[in-house]
Amino acid sequence: MRLCDGIRLEHTIRTFSKFGQTKNGGVTRLSLSPEDLAARKYFCECCKELGMDVTFDDMANIYATLPGKKDLPPIVMGSHLDSVEKGGRFDGVLGVLTALEVVRTLRDDNVELDAPIVIVNFTNEEGARFDPAMMSSGVLAGKFFKEKMLYSKDKNGISFVDALEQSGYKGEQKNRLKEAIAYLELHIEQGPVLESKEIDIGVVEGVLGMVCYEFTIKGESDHAGTTPMSMRKDPLFVATDVMTMLRQQLSKVDEELVYTIGRVNVTPNIHTVIPNKVIFTLEARHQDPAKISMVEEMIHQLPSEIVGCHLSFEKLWSRDTVVFDGSICQIIEDACQKYRYSSHRMFSGAGHDAQFIASYIPSAMIFVPSVNGKSHCEEELTSFEDCLKGANIMLQTVLTLQQKLVKNESITLEKEGIL
Amino acid sequence: MRLCDGIRLEHTIRTFSKFGQTKNGGVTRLSLSPEDLAARKYFCECCKELGMDVTFDDMANIYATLPGKKDLPPIVMGSHLDSVEKGGRFDGVLGVLTALEVVRTLRDDNVELDAPIVIVNFTNEEGARFDPAMMSSGVLAGKFFKEKMLYSKDKNGISFVDALEQSGYKGEQKNRLKEAIAYLELHIEQGPVLESKEIDIGVVEGVLGMVCYEFTIKGESDHAGTTPMSMRKDPLFVATDVMTMLRQQLSKVDEELVYTIGRVNVTPNIHTVIPNKVIFTLEARHQDPAKISMVEEMIHQLPSEIVGCHLSFEKLWSRDTVVFDGSICQIIEDACQKYRYSSHRMFSGAGHDAQFIASYIPSAMIFVPSVNGKSHCEEELTSFEDCLKGANIMLQTVLTLQQKLVKNESITLEKEGIL
Repeated sequence: MRLCDGIRLEHTIRTFSKFGQTKNGGVTRLSLSPEDLAARKYFCECCKELGMDVTFDDMANIYATLPGKKDLPPIVMGSHLDSVEKGGRFDGVLGVLTALEVVRTLRDDNVELDAPIVIVNFTNEEGARFDPAMMSSGVLAGKFFKEKMLYSKDKNGISFVDALEQSGYKGEQKNRLKEAIAYLELHIEQGPVLESKEIDIGVVEGVLGMVCYEFTIKGESDHAGTTPMSMRKDPLFVATDVMTMLRQQLSKVDEELVYTIGRVNVTPNIHTVIPNKVIFTLEARHQDPAKISMVEEMIHQLPSEIVGCHLSFEKLWSRDTVVFDGSICQIIEDACQKYRYSSHRMFSGAGHDAQFIASYIPSAMIFVPSVNGKSHCEEELTSFEDCLKGANIMLQTVLTLQQKLVKNESITLEKEGIL
Repeated sequence: MRLCDGIRLEHTIRTFSKFGQTKNGGVTRLSLSPEDLAARKYFCECCKELGMDVTFDDMANIYATLPGKKDLPPIVMGSHLDSVEKGGRFDGVLGVLTALEVVRTLRDDNVELDAPIVIVNFTNEEGARFDPAMMSSGVLAGKFFKEKMLYSKDKNGISFVDALEQSGYKGEQKNRLKEAIAYLELHIEQGPVLESKEIDIGVVEGVLGMVCYEFTIKGESDHAGTTPMSMRKDPLFVATDVMTMLRQQLSKVDEELVYTIGRVNVTPNIHTVIPNKVIFTLEARHQDPAKISMVEEMIHQLPSEIVGCHLSFEKLWSRDTVVFDGSICQIIEDACQKYRYSSHRMFSGAGHDAQFIASYIPSAMIFVPSVNGKSHCEEELTSFEDCLKGANIMLQTVLTLQQKLVKNESITLEKEGIL
């Protein structure tokens, strides 16, 4: 049973956390910023030291390739080095650094695989500098139009294309990640489930589908002192009633459904004036499209006139549930058994590059616990012990995929045309 | 039965609506602005034409005095010429112009009264330029400290004291409104009650007491996709529950209680993030202090911990119910009967100069209907017919007060030491 080097992994994580480190122990490493470029540079140096071949594609995605003994499609691991503003030391970067640790362990142990191993760093996963999130994996998967992405601007008015040109990481389109045996992405859970259940590893079977609606309720702004209750058309009272009704109905759909009212805007928002307009959002996520449909039906059954107020709604956006490759999930789960790590099959509520890559490469994700479920903040934490467990599972998953290749088992990967 | 001149009154209202008129038929006549100064100038000219003596006090309040035959305290009518930004053509100014129409009618009819008649224009009633509202009547009544008011600044950084000095209307403190037989203020209702009940005149018995509280609910901002419902500390869900509970309880207090949640702020207010803080206000108004106490008790009985969130509240401000002079209200009501105008005894939900003046002069107000209950907006409207009815009632009220003086009836005014 091969093991990664926990001390080395911790050292690597600590080293990378200096690129853009904040005074409260987090990092600000926006995509293609000087901090991100410094992290990229050091990452490329680490890979080259291991004898890996480093290339970039036209979206500045980095691919570090350890050659295999045979001319086969690669086994790919990776995630992203960029962070949100005042983010944590683990989100994204941990998937890249555990992949690096896997390759280092293979090199230490003189294990030569038939298939090449690729570590990928996706550009601008967070979308914190350039909207949208998961920009580059989205372009690779054909979900986003590259031409449109190039003109996404940061808050200083710098366009992605300009940042790309100046980064030194713009490569050729032909270098893009194409056919591969598998794509593995290790990531922090960003939620409290693993920690609360005291589980080591999340075997991520997919990414939850979701819908997001915006509701507008229009009423009449009258004087708060002179308008009797019975003569009011108060959109805030209607909004609270609608929110309460939706929550009651949503709570009955399924206990795994998650739903959030994150944004509420009241107009004119003056304490002595009855509001005339309330806008709020509702987003809901579930792995089963039928449950999401139930949510949408509920919304569509809302009356348009309530106590003199007018209710309308708009679907802001949605995403379908992404289901990862079941064979790879099984390999991950088997690895957990082998290492006697507790595991839990789950869906990711958050979006990840893997959800786009999964459209053309058999993919799966490995989650490690987030302390208090926190992410995208300076307090974000995963114990080094848990990071090591994740790295070991990724190592074992790569080895199992390799063994199946050797045995010519065709891996029974669910996606067609890979082997 | 004496009648005011409806055509003249309409002409006067139309003339004053040109001072600061907006393109949508309203007015912007902020206190001591060029528009307000133009209106003041024309008002003073009108008064002087009637043989009235015009003085100003140290808060730039204007007093136009028609001498009486005897050395008696005056009968005072008035309101304010200033408006809010994009306000209407009636709020405030109507109380001054109907008073002017009353004096004009008395002069036309060669009626000489024993007591002097004073028309007062209070400076900065709206508080739209200089906070607070009812500034000058508040200073006169000792509710506000003049020294503090002087340094109230408008949005351009101009202090009230500077505007006062430059206005040309700064007079002496000794000119302030002191002892008087009565203070009468005619005003638009600013609510929908008179119109909906098809009533001509509101006999205003006082101003509602009120309380305003601000609630803060703190929870935890977690990822909307990865945090199971059962593990959330969502302050918005708690806030909607608290709002619903408060509304249910408040609706049972008394049908005349009015209550408003006018301001709601959600943090961070992002649709994919569970909020961590919600702040909202609740204000409630009722004439009976016991009902207001019930509201405050309800608030104080709220739990401080709800579903993992912390609730706290703060009393932003309150005002006690002001009860106007019952004798004057009766005189107003009798006048309505005499003119065969329907009348309705009511409290004002909005604040007015009269609420402060009532602390040292027997006071009452006369309300005329507001179309659709609208005020503080360009659509604000009271029919000229209703304006005339109001003027007639004010005229008759002045005459009745005078008759009682002649008969030496001591008017039975409720305030002590007046006659």
